[in-house]
Amino acid sequence: MRTFFWKNSTDEQRLAALQRPATLAKGDLSAKVAEILAAVKSGGDEALRSLTAKFDQVELSALEVTSEEFAAARKSVGQGAREALEHAARNIEKFHLAQIPVNQAIETQPGVTCERQYRPIVRVGLYVPGGSACLPSTVLMLGIPSRLAGCELRVLVTPPRKDGSVDPFILEAARICRIDKVFKVGGAQAIAALAYGTESIPKVDKIFGPGNAYVTEAKEQVASQSASAIDMPAGPSEVLVVADANADPVFVAADLLSQAEHGPDSQVVLVTDSEEMVTKVQAEIAAQLATLPRASIATQALEKSLSIVVNSVAEAIAVSNQYAPEHLILQVDMAARYKDRILNAGSVFLGPWSPESAGDYASGTNHVLPTYGYARSYSGLSVDSFLKQITFQELTEKGIKALGPVIETLATIEGLDAHCQAVTLRLKALGSRETL
Amino acid sequence: MRTFFWKNSTDEQRLAALQRPATLAKGDLSAKVAEILAAVKSGGDEALRSLTAKFDQVELSALEVTSEEFAAARKSVGQGAREALEHAARNIEKFHLAQIPVNQAIETQPGVTCERQYRPIVRVGLYVPGGSACLPSTVLMLGIPSRLAGCELRVLVTPPRKDGSVDPFILEAARICRIDKVFKVGGAQAIAALAYGTESIPKVDKIFGPGNAYVTEAKEQVASQSASAIDMPAGPSEVLVVADANADPVFVAADLLSQAEHGPDSQVVLVTDSEEMVTKVQAEIAAQLATLPRASIATQALEKSLSIVVNSVAEAIAVSNQYAPEHLILQVDMAARYKDRILNAGSVFLGPWSPESAGDYASGTNHVLPTYGYARSYSGLSVDSFLKQITFQELTEKGIKALGPVIETLATIEGLDAHCQAVTLRLKALGSRETL
Repeated sequence: MRTFFWKNSTDEQRLAALQRPATLAKGDLSAKVAEILAAVKSGGDEALRSLTAKFDQVELSALEVTSEEFAAARKSVGQGAREALEHAARNIEKFHLAQIPVNQAIETQPGVTCERQYRPIVRVGLYVPGGSACLPSTVLMLGIPSRLAGCELRVLVTPPRKDGSVDPFILEAARICRIDKVFKVGGAQAIAALAYGTESIPKVDKIFGPGNAYVTEAKEQVASQSASAIDMPAGPSEVLVVADANADPVFVAADLLSQAEHGPDSQVVLVTDSEEMVTKVQAEIAAQLATLPRASIATQALEKSLSIVVNSVAEAIAVSNQYAPEHLILQVDMAARYKDRILNAGSVFLGPWSPESAGDYASGTNHVLPTYGYARSYSGLSVDSFLKQITFQELTEKGIKALGPVIETLATIEGLDAHCQAVTLRLKALGSRETL
Repeated sequence: MRTFFWKNSTDEQRLAALQRPATLAKGDLSAKVAEILAAVKSGGDEALRSLTAKFDQVELSALEVTSEEFAAARKSVGQGAREALEHAARNIEKFHLAQIPVNQAIETQPGVTCERQYRPIVRVGLYVPGGSACLPSTVLMLGIPSRLAGCELRVLVTPPRKDGSVDPFILEAARICRIDKVFKVGGAQAIAALAYGTESIPKVDKIFGPGNAYVTEAKEQVASQSASAIDMPAGPSEVLVVADANADPVFVAADLLSQAEHGPDSQVVLVTDSEEMVTKVQAEIAAQLATLPRASIATQALEKSLSIVVNSVAEAIAVSNQYAPEHLILQVDMAARYKDRILNAGSVFLGPWSPESAGDYASGTNHVLPTYGYARSYSGLSVDSFLKQITFQELTEKGIKALGPVIETLATIEGLDAHCQAVTLRLKALGSRETL
């Protein structure tokens, strides 16, 4: 971890310090993904099977997980794990339940009623990564808000394991979220199936969930073809920890490491008003790293990471706002009093007893969050992500009579005569009726 | 307008009938836009000036509109126009004011508090098209919700007229929305300025507003570079009118025409359970068309458009849900009773006295809406479009003690040991404190 002194730096140096590491050059990734998308679009299930054989080394007959497989998974998951998943699900549900919005109707002037109503996105696709890690927590984070939103069709896709099965924890989490359509397909080919539909897998209106570079590129390509909307752009995961002189370096180091172990491209940033804290945290990192199985991944992530020394906690928050972290941890005295100052962040963890892993799993907040500075303009997943809004307006005779002349004036200013005429003809009809 | 009989058609024919006309092939548009973006990124204001000279045939000295220009615009706009703009603004404000969301805090379990807070997107860019039409109504639709959201910096860009001025109605609308930074630049170069920033024009976090093919392509390119987020993907404007046998063909024709005059690529669709209505409406269209200055544009749009004959209003709504129109007009008996059945649409107009132009200008709803089927997964602009959500969590000692074991179990399942350790170290610290 490099140390950067905010005070003695120019604006340009500061901007450069907060720059995310460039993501890997796409190289021929775009072309490869485009080829996979085209193969699935024309080849359907058969293409999915052959791509799964090629990339996952699995020969599948049925793509959909059967109820027998769900039942077997349920048995193989121990009671402790099931209870932990159910506990997390309860907290996530409780927090997301409060997000269900209410419809609004407003009479903007007598006889003119405008309304905003929410509707679930009808068909949604949920991508859950496989590969080295198995992520049942992601199933909960996608499955619970989509259920609360009332989406009619929820399709979960996830890559099969080498033996052709799906991880039982994933299936158990899917059962808890009442997702009954799960397909054994991953990678760009899974995104293609959701965007275009195949014989087995229904086409969806919006695709959610994290994934590797292939999945991310596939999501971007299907979105740009307007084949399917996507949840948000993706970048490497990241944390920014603000620590004051009284923070516990053991906790700070543990939180930085729990982000660093995600992947070699993860970024961790420490911002502190205590130069001593930097030294203490670095020593702690070294000590804790020794005990971690994923130490080599974490070490790679730490190499690109940064400690920033500032003058005050307020300045640290300002630095954080400029960086716009996915996760922000405040290990400072009376952390909650800084809430209002936080302008750009995905999810925020307040005080010593709120590690990032609490929000990753079980506090109740969603862990699908904007990365790579997108927190300046995007929000994490919520029930809203699975809804859209429709506006309605109804004018009475009185309403169009009062508002009509305003519309006519504005349409005339804009030179849109048919817009004007649609009102004029109605006012005439009302006028002639009154004359009768 | 072609007539299509829903009843006697196969699912495939129906799908084909509802297909939007393909948008024009991009050809070298992408490359041209990329060139403009690169020129502005490296050349700043100087590049903006030379591109404005090239594309708008205007030599500008200052890019920003001065307070003198605002004052002159105010004078040149007549009282009638000003009052119409202010009237529309009041209705739009009233409807959008109700959209300001409230923060939520939930104790998901004792000692675990989760919160969702809204924050304005700090810096936003508002694009208002120029060219043939002058669109002060679009200024209101972007300016009012961004003001209500509390965005700190709102920058409006719009192409200059041939004499180097900005249309006075646009400036007057900007004044009403309290936008004080207006720049005389349009096209892809304006989007580049907002995405990268120049000496005069500040970089923004999200860009809003409609535009021509260059503007749309530029928005897509800056979004894919993660230089700036954008409001929504864009396609040609469209309306679907559902009319029953008792609808007034004069009103139906007027509403179809007021959409068709937008541009030659506009799409208008009539869905009715009365074959006779099709004939009546076509006759009315011919009659009204004769009086319209923009008849040639409307005629081109109508050539690609469609009448669909169905069995019932309920079936018409089902067809509309499949098409997912930007604007949906229900000219049927007791239109409001169908509201709940409408699943996919941008904005809906109920009954004979609610023409589309009411919502385009002054009813209170927003006219920046999802086109091209995007209404399946996107919403029209609202105050929410200018906000993002940040989640917060704070665990007390009691909270982490109760929830810690759940987090440890889930982290272990996922093989993320540092995530587990961040909790374990905290539980140990609490344990040893108690032992003391």
